[in-house]
Amino acid sequence: MEVTARAPGKIILAGEHAVVHGYTAVASSIDLHTVASLRLRPDGEDTINLQLKDVGLDFSWPIQKIKEVVAHLGSPFSSTPTSCSLEIIKSLTALVDEQSFPEARIGLASGVCAFLWLYTSILGFKPATVIVTSQLPVGAGLGSSAAYCVTLSAALLAFSDSVKVDMSQKGWFIFKEAEVELLNKWAFEGEKIIHGKPSGVDNSVSTFGNMIKFKSGSMTRIDSNMPLRMLITNTKVGRDTKALVANVSSRKSKHPEVMGCVLNAIEFISEEWSTIIQSHALDDLSLATNEERLIELMEMNQGLLLSIGVSQAAIETVLQTTMKYKLASKLTGAGGGGCVLTFLPIQLSEAIVDKVVGELESFGFQCFAAGIGGKGVQISFDSSP
Amino acid sequence: MEVTARAPGKIILAGEHAVVHGYTAVASSIDLHTVASLRLRPDGEDTINLQLKDVGLDFSWPIQKIKEVVAHLGSPFSSTPTSCSLEIIKSLTALVDEQSFPEARIGLASGVCAFLWLYTSILGFKPATVIVTSQLPVGAGLGSSAAYCVTLSAALLAFSDSVKVDMSQKGWFIFKEAEVELLNKWAFEGEKIIHGKPSGVDNSVSTFGNMIKFKSGSMTRIDSNMPLRMLITNTKVGRDTKALVANVSSRKSKHPEVMGCVLNAIEFISEEWSTIIQSHALDDLSLATNEERLIELMEMNQGLLLSIGVSQAAIETVLQTTMKYKLASKLTGAGGGGCVLTFLPIQLSEAIVDKVVGELESFGFQCFAAGIGGKGVQISFDSSP
Repeated sequence: MEVTARAPGKIILAGEHAVVHGYTAVASSIDLHTVASLRLRPDGEDTINLQLKDVGLDFSWPIQKIKEVVAHLGSPFSSTPTSCSLEIIKSLTALVDEQSFPEARIGLASGVCAFLWLYTSILGFKPATVIVTSQLPVGAGLGSSAAYCVTLSAALLAFSDSVKVDMSQKGWFIFKEAEVELLNKWAFEGEKIIHGKPSGVDNSVSTFGNMIKFKSGSMTRIDSNMPLRMLITNTKVGRDTKALVANVSSRKSKHPEVMGCVLNAIEFISEEWSTIIQSHALDDLSLATNEERLIELMEMNQGLLLSIGVSQAAIETVLQTTMKYKLASKLTGAGGGGCVLTFLPIQLSEAIVDKVVGELESFGFQCFAAGIGGKGVQISFDSSP
Repeated sequence: MEVTARAPGKIILAGEHAVVHGYTAVASSIDLHTVASLRLRPDGEDTINLQLKDVGLDFSWPIQKIKEVVAHLGSPFSSTPTSCSLEIIKSLTALVDEQSFPEARIGLASGVCAFLWLYTSILGFKPATVIVTSQLPVGAGLGSSAAYCVTLSAALLAFSDSVKVDMSQKGWFIFKEAEVELLNKWAFEGEKIIHGKPSGVDNSVSTFGNMIKFKSGSMTRIDSNMPLRMLITNTKVGRDTKALVANVSSRKSKHPEVMGCVLNAIEFISEEWSTIIQSHALDDLSLATNEERLIELMEMNQGLLLSIGVSQAAIETVLQTTMKYKLASKLTGAGGGGCVLTFLPIQLSEAIVDKVVGELESFGFQCFAAGIGGKGVQISFDSSP
């Protein structure tokens, strides 16, 4: 029996950076997924195997070795998500480091630790093979690590005693609401191992799908009633999120009045976004009007992000390129590189999308056209031997 | 005896568009000039000759013909600036149209009308040759028409009874304050013929130089205490100022809260600009700090202009290009094309300026490095025969 789980990535539609200063942001799922398949192996075999296909990494740990690190904790305890202590993280990291880990992939070590923690906490020490693939670029602000933790948690919980699922069901489906909440908590524990102090937004969007409004640490799930599509352009320019956040704070203290107005403007943009996407457009005309308003909000939000100093040359290249096609774009996430969103109106022809993508890719960027606000994590079973 | 007058162009440093909605804007002179030289000819000769060197136009009107149109008004009345009636504009236009006027230069006809009105109003019907040249591109938002009217008014008044000047003075100088006020009023009358309803900002900046803060129709002259230099890039993209202004108003009515915050932010930027440039920097360190703050204000202002929807692909190209060199830019004036300002810090090497200019010119743009906030209109006499 094999379970496959898939979890979506996320984008910030509005309010990035402002959220750090107590204002509202809106995040959405995107239909680019990280997929994990888990197949339990006969009890006689004594290894847990993790294959990260996209990066060509393949790990195998003798179960005995893993037990030496975590067995004293008394896992599995799948129904009560627990944090991995710094001490255990250290020991798990040692286990990971024993494996052949190419220098260039060193950043992924914490993700492998998170796997070991989630695995042993939820499923204990059953031998298995877990294969992970992803459509999401790593470190580009699209929530790849959250999608990874969510998809792993889903696959692991599917075989645990904490959720009740009918394994004979066909196609993609998801656990009951309370079980999904549990899954989200586990994914958050994984995120903590990878990021230290994640906000919880990424894993929540990946778990529940659709959109989430968040402000001062509290999250509200909102249901989009609009079909939305974005072109996501990964500039591949790395950035230092902490430095960007610090620069915004410094600008805020140097120009308090201007920045106060700018952050208030962003607040109103987030509020308008959530109002518009929740409204029920009754006909094509009101849909077009709503699209038009969202496009303006995107353009305004990008302007305000430029104002607070987090745009950057590659982002401006995307902006300038899409502007030639009368398309509105904004950076998403921390800025200073990373990804840029371009709104794709429903009526826009694929020929134009192809042209824009061609032009953007000629700069070395990577483009994904993605649906916005779709479903969260899902699982499916395959009973073939 | 020949008089030469030169009048500077202008840029908007901060607050364009916001000023339409009752907020503050700051305009500055730039050391790119329009120059007019006027040489009276012996009374026996019976024509007034105007040569617009940059556009290769050369007009000659028999004085008798001009008299037929305006003599009944009883000019010259150099000390009391008067408006040209629509009827007289019509008659003057007919005079202009009689001249060979190439189709492509038709937009300049109103400028030639303005010349005839200023000439006859201030100097009456003395035969003369007036030669005009300019460093300012036409229709690019750099106040070329105002500089033209100011320089003509200065040259004409220099030979009128309304100002008292010592023609033996050497070098550039200017009339007394009250006379300069008179000059500015005449230039405004010229601007009205060219633009219909000018704000009076352009001619005031060109006349008085330095900087002007303006809001709801009232102007305050401010003295800059900082040496400032900008790279002015003319994208050569024509724009429809009325349509741009209308779009901003429409966006304001669609997104009142967001736009309210954005316009307030611009107000604070204009206020900060005027505070900083008037402050007396005591040493290199505080000068550098002030430069840094102005650079941030430029970047913020551009972001806000993008927010209100008046940026455009060519402007974004300039932005993206200068951003690669860590230089801050903003559009100036109406947007939708036109000119872009790039702040040139005092310490910036000429080699880098050259590189940036080279890159910008490779897009077909035209660049001028210009000092900001310099002197207004000046005259000088040449007594060689």
